[in-house]
Amino acid sequence: MKRIVVDWGSSNFRAYRFGVEGALIERHQAEAGILTVRDGAFEDALEREIGHWLDPETEILLSGMITSRNGWVETPYLEPPASLSGLATRAVARPARTGARLLFLPGVCNRAPQPDVMRGEEIQVFGAVSPTEDALVVLPGTHSKWVSVRAGAIAGFSTFLTGEMFALLCQHSIIGRLIPPGAAGASNGAFLEGVKLGFSGNPRGLLNDVFTARAGALLGDFMPTEIAERLSGILIGHEIRAGFESAIMPGLTPLLVGEAALIARYAVAFSALGLASAKGPDHAAVEGFRKLGALGASHA
Amino acid sequence: MKRIVVDWGSSNFRAYRFGVEGALIERHQAEAGILTVRDGAFEDALEREIGHWLDPETEILLSGMITSRNGWVETPYLEPPASLSGLATRAVARPARTGARLLFLPGVCNRAPQPDVMRGEEIQVFGAVSPTEDALVVLPGTHSKWVSVRAGAIAGFSTFLTGEMFALLCQHSIIGRLIPPGAAGASNGAFLEGVKLGFSGNPRGLLNDVFTARAGALLGDFMPTEIAERLSGILIGHEIRAGFESAIMPGLTPLLVGEAALIARYAVAFSALGLASAKGPDHAAVEGFRKLGALGASHA
Repeated sequence: MKRIVVDWGSSNFRAYRFGVEGALIERHQAEAGILTVRDGAFEDALEREIGHWLDPETEILLSGMITSRNGWVETPYLEPPASLSGLATRAVARPARTGARLLFLPGVCNRAPQPDVMRGEEIQVFGAVSPTEDALVVLPGTHSKWVSVRAGAIAGFSTFLTGEMFALLCQHSIIGRLIPPGAAGASNGAFLEGVKLGFSGNPRGLLNDVFTARAGALLGDFMPTEIAERLSGILIGHEIRAGFESAIMPGLTPLLVGEAALIARYAVAFSALGLASAKGPDHAAVEGFRKLGALGASHA
Repeated sequence: MKRIVVDWGSSNFRAYRFGVEGALIERHQAEAGILTVRDGAFEDALEREIGHWLDPETEILLSGMITSRNGWVETPYLEPPASLSGLATRAVARPARTGARLLFLPGVCNRAPQPDVMRGEEIQVFGAVSPTEDALVVLPGTHSKWVSVRAGAIAGFSTFLTGEMFALLCQHSIIGRLIPPGAAGASNGAFLEGVKLGFSGNPRGLLNDVFTARAGALLGDFMPTEIAERLSGILIGHEIRAGFESAIMPGLTPLLVGEAALIARYAVAFSALGLASAKGPDHAAVEGFRKLGALGASHA
């Protein structure tokens, strides 16, 4: 049985073809996320991207927003403890027109102490940790996830709106209006001051902290060119403080997984706070899909 | 000397004409905020709105964003303790073309423990409190202000981005995307649950709390029609918690000043949290301008 894994998110389509021994043979990527697909024509889109891979002997695992309410097949959420094999066994099967077998993976949810959801990030988590490991995996991004892993399974997690909040404040808020067009190259100091303010746990909280990025510039405490870096730091500082507090198992060193530049930015923030962090493996998603592809044969 | 006070903000132009005994004679309001004025033609705009009031015997106090960097004359910020008479004495005088005397009022700033600024809200504060009073004045809104007043003067304050954050999240974020078009009439319960969550001080913080308004709807904990009310509650709950913590003098009952519907909303939130609040006078701004107009003669 040939195995293909498709990571189909809102903006991007990424497909991986694995050999029978589980090695990655080929990959294909396109800006063909589910938001670009009209009238639910997902199967047409799939054939357009990787039609030449889709013979009847093929099993295709699909993950990401393609399995959401706005996707092709909405799958349930797996509750903690959520393991990689649990994901595979809860996949929803559908035949493709070509005769290939489609398996839509579930998402993972958290129900207590707070509701939370992920679709896709769990693959990176499983790619980054070993099947028996305890870990605190941090996936920075638009919606940063702090994932507590116990014995290789997701025990719980929290999402922080950090990256999206930064974009909202820079692009649409009164704070962003002071940022000079094309402002760049602000000092690293502005970012680190923001990180320390956000992490400080001062009682005025986030709604005030972000406003100080405007007020301080108006009062001449710093230059308007520093507002964006300061805002970024404030939000990441808040996330780091809350992330540790939300972790299920205390004392674990955060394992940073994701895009290199963003990981580096977080590593600088942790370091400035005197906190340890570790860099996770590159290509955690591919590794997660490889593991999943290998499992797919036996479980699904 | 005839006295006119102009509250000229980003979106609105409001002018008040007072008699020699300080009684309000006439008012004029237009959607002619400074953002509608092209090429700095503020004097043309002033004459278009209230030109018939502007004879040489007139003194005009101007307040609000018209005194900001994007306005007509940028005035300095008065530092705490900031009194009404301090405002009047620090006004920046300019002759108008008609011979009338323009007085641009300063803003008020806070320098420690955090930078903060206001332009215009201070008038409402002085309108709401007596010249010798201690008070905690809360002005809910796009940028809510919690103002500590000691012996009638502003001793310090904090701004919370509550209203703007609500608009950003509803209109531009992934959370807002789940809100059905035209959703309204959500239960008061959703708002109150949000207030309690936001006020709880749970360690996951605001960046996670707002995401739960999406995740909970996806998991069926509540209906998508409740997301907006829940978000509003979460943000107001965070503001109330942080507002009390930021107050300079403990133990004062918040005096709510501003637009009636918004004040009522906050009063419900305080009540649900078992906290006392009091409703400030209606028309605090007009009363503040009246007091200022009366002072203008002697001080400016």
